[in-house]
Amino acid sequence: MRSEFDFIQSIKLKYGLNRIGDDCAVLPKDDQTDMVITADMLVEGIDFRLDWTTPEYLGHKSLAVSLSDVAAMGATPEWAMISIGVPPGLWGDHFLDMFYSGWHDLAAECGVELVGGDVSRVPDQLVIDSIVGGSVPRGEAVLRSTARPGDGIFVTGSLGGAAAGLKLLQQGVRIGSADELEILLILRQLRPKPCVSVGQALRSHSISTAMIDISDGLSADLSHLVESSRVGARLNAESIPLLNGTGPSAYSAEALENALHGGEDFELLFTADPGKVSKLGLADVHHIGDITADAGTIELVTDGEPQVLEAKGYRHF
Amino acid sequence: MRSEFDFIQSIKLKYGLNRIGDDCAVLPKDDQTDMVITADMLVEGIDFRLDWTTPEYLGHKSLAVSLSDVAAMGATPEWAMISIGVPPGLWGDHFLDMFYSGWHDLAAECGVELVGGDVSRVPDQLVIDSIVGGSVPRGEAVLRSTARPGDGIFVTGSLGGAAAGLKLLQQGVRIGSADELEILLILRQLRPKPCVSVGQALRSHSISTAMIDISDGLSADLSHLVESSRVGARLNAESIPLLNGTGPSAYSAEALENALHGGEDFELLFTADPGKVSKLGLADVHHIGDITADAGTIELVTDGEPQVLEAKGYRHF
Repeated sequence: MRSEFDFIQSIKLKYGLNRIGDDCAVLPKDDQTDMVITADMLVEGIDFRLDWTTPEYLGHKSLAVSLSDVAAMGATPEWAMISIGVPPGLWGDHFLDMFYSGWHDLAAECGVELVGGDVSRVPDQLVIDSIVGGSVPRGEAVLRSTARPGDGIFVTGSLGGAAAGLKLLQQGVRIGSADELEILLILRQLRPKPCVSVGQALRSHSISTAMIDISDGLSADLSHLVESSRVGARLNAESIPLLNGTGPSAYSAEALENALHGGEDFELLFTADPGKVSKLGLADVHHIGDITADAGTIELVTDGEPQVLEAKGYRHF
Repeated sequence: MRSEFDFIQSIKLKYGLNRIGDDCAVLPKDDQTDMVITADMLVEGIDFRLDWTTPEYLGHKSLAVSLSDVAAMGATPEWAMISIGVPPGLWGDHFLDMFYSGWHDLAAECGVELVGGDVSRVPDQLVIDSIVGGSVPRGEAVLRSTARPGDGIFVTGSLGGAAAGLKLLQQGVRIGSADELEILLILRQLRPKPCVSVGQALRSHSISTAMIDISDGLSADLSHLVESSRVGARLNAESIPLLNGTGPSAYSAEALENALHGGEDFELLFTADPGKVSKLGLADVHHIGDITADAGTIELVTDGEPQVLEAKGYRHF
C-alpha cells in the first residue's frame, strides 16, 4: 500500500507542484516580504487520544505543530485558521471552549491572530486542521534543500522526550499519577513547545544554511533534508542530546532509539558553519554531525564505528 | 445543544476576533492589495456520501466550496492547500489520484495553484479541509456587512437545484439511471460551479454593496447578510429564479422551498443599485427583492401578501 509520501511525490511530479515539499509553502507577499503558510491535520485515534490529553493541551498542540513548521523556515507567525470536526459527544460540555483556550494561550504568546476556519460536525472521531501563515524577508526563508557538504548538523534542545512520553502514556501512566520526570516526558508529547524565536534568530543572523523541524523523528527528518539537498550526513551518536541526560538512568536504555526515531519533539534540525553557531552563542544548541558529499547516505558513528542509519518514523507533507 | 454558530460567536466576542464572520478573512498584503483566505471542512457522512458521488466530483466540490467564498468577496483566487484524512479502505485503489484529478481540473480553470496541505490517515470517515487564498485591490473586498436600505437584492443563476439533486440522491436516483433534468439537478449537488468571474465583475465595476455566497440556503444566507448589515429585507417570491423554470412540472412543487431553504447552490447573493446592475448587463442575474431599514426582519411577498420569512438551513463560519 502506498504511503502519503508516495502520493504527494506522484502529484508533485505529475502536476509540477514546485511549492510543495518544505515545512511551509513560500509565496511572494510584497517587495520586501514573502508569506509562508502550512497546514497540519490531527486525527483522533491516529495523532492523539482524548483520554490521554486535556482539551487545553490538544488546542495548544494543534497550533504548536504548525508554528513549528513556520519556525523551521525562520519565519514570524502572524495569523491562523482552525478547521475542527466535532463528534456529537463533545458538543454538550465545554470541550470547545477549553480547546480554544489552550489554542489561544499559545497564539497570544506567539503574536498569532485567529482569522478564520470552519466548525463542522463529524460522526465519530474529532479531527483538527491547523493552518498558520507568517512572514519572512523576501528570499530569506530557510529551506530543506540548501545544505552543503562541510556544514555542521545541529539540533536545538534535546530529543526523544516526546517518544518516551508516548510510551509512558501507552503503559497507562497519566499526569495525575506520574513522577516529576514522567510528567516532563508526557508534556513533551502532549504540549510541545515550538522553537519560534530560535528559528528566527538562526535566519536573521544568516546562520542556518538549511532547516527542518523534527516532527517525524531525527532519522526521518534528516533524511528529508539530505534528500532535498542532495547531500549525505554523518552523525555522532555521543553528541545527540537525549532528554534523560539529567534524569534517572531508568529512562536511558531506549533513549538513543527514541532520539533517533521518535517523532514529535518539534525541535529544529539545521545545518550551518559551526564557527558561526558558536559566535551566536545560543543556549541549548548541539553539534551532532556533519553534512557529507555522499548523497542520500546517513551514517551514525558509535564508538568510532560508522554504520548506515536507515530512516524510520513518520513521513508526511 | 449549542450550534457551531453559537461557539464561533462566543469566541469572537470573548477574544475580539474581528476578522471572523465573512466568507473570507481579509488581511493586508501590500500597498495595493489585500489577501483573502478561507477554509472549509467536508466530512464523509455529514457533507457527502462516497456512494453518491465520484472521487473526481468530490475533488471538484472540495475546491468549489472555497472558491465560492473567494468569489463572494469579489476576489481572485490564487493558491490553495488541501488537508485530507484518508481511511484505510481508500488507500489501495486510485481514489486519491481521481480525487486530485477532479480538484486539479477546476483549479487549472480558475488559475489556482496547490501549494501545500497535509495527508493523514483516519480510522473511518474521509475528511477534507479545503483552504483557498486570493487577492483583491486594497479595501475593495465586498463584505456582508455593507448593504444599505434601498439597495436591490440580487442572485445569480437559479436556486434550489442542489437541494432537489440531494433529494433525488436520497430517493436512490443515481447519475447512471437518471434522466436529463435529474442529472442536471444531481450535478448541481455534486459538482457545483463557483461564480468566480461574476463576483470579480461585480466588485471591479463597483456594483455590489454587499455580497455572500449561497451555501446554507437563500433564507439563511440572506439572514447572515442582513444581520451583519443591520438592515432588513423584502423578497418577492415570484422573482426568485427556480432551477425548474424550464424543466418538467414534476419538479415544481417543492421548488420554492428548495430555493428558499436548500443549501449548496453556491450562487452569489448581492445587494446593489438596480440601475447599475442593468447597465452592466450581466446575463442570468435576478432582482429578487430590496433591502429595508427594518433591521433583522426578512419578509417574503407572495401574491402581494408579505409574511415574515424565518431562516432555515445550515449555519457555519
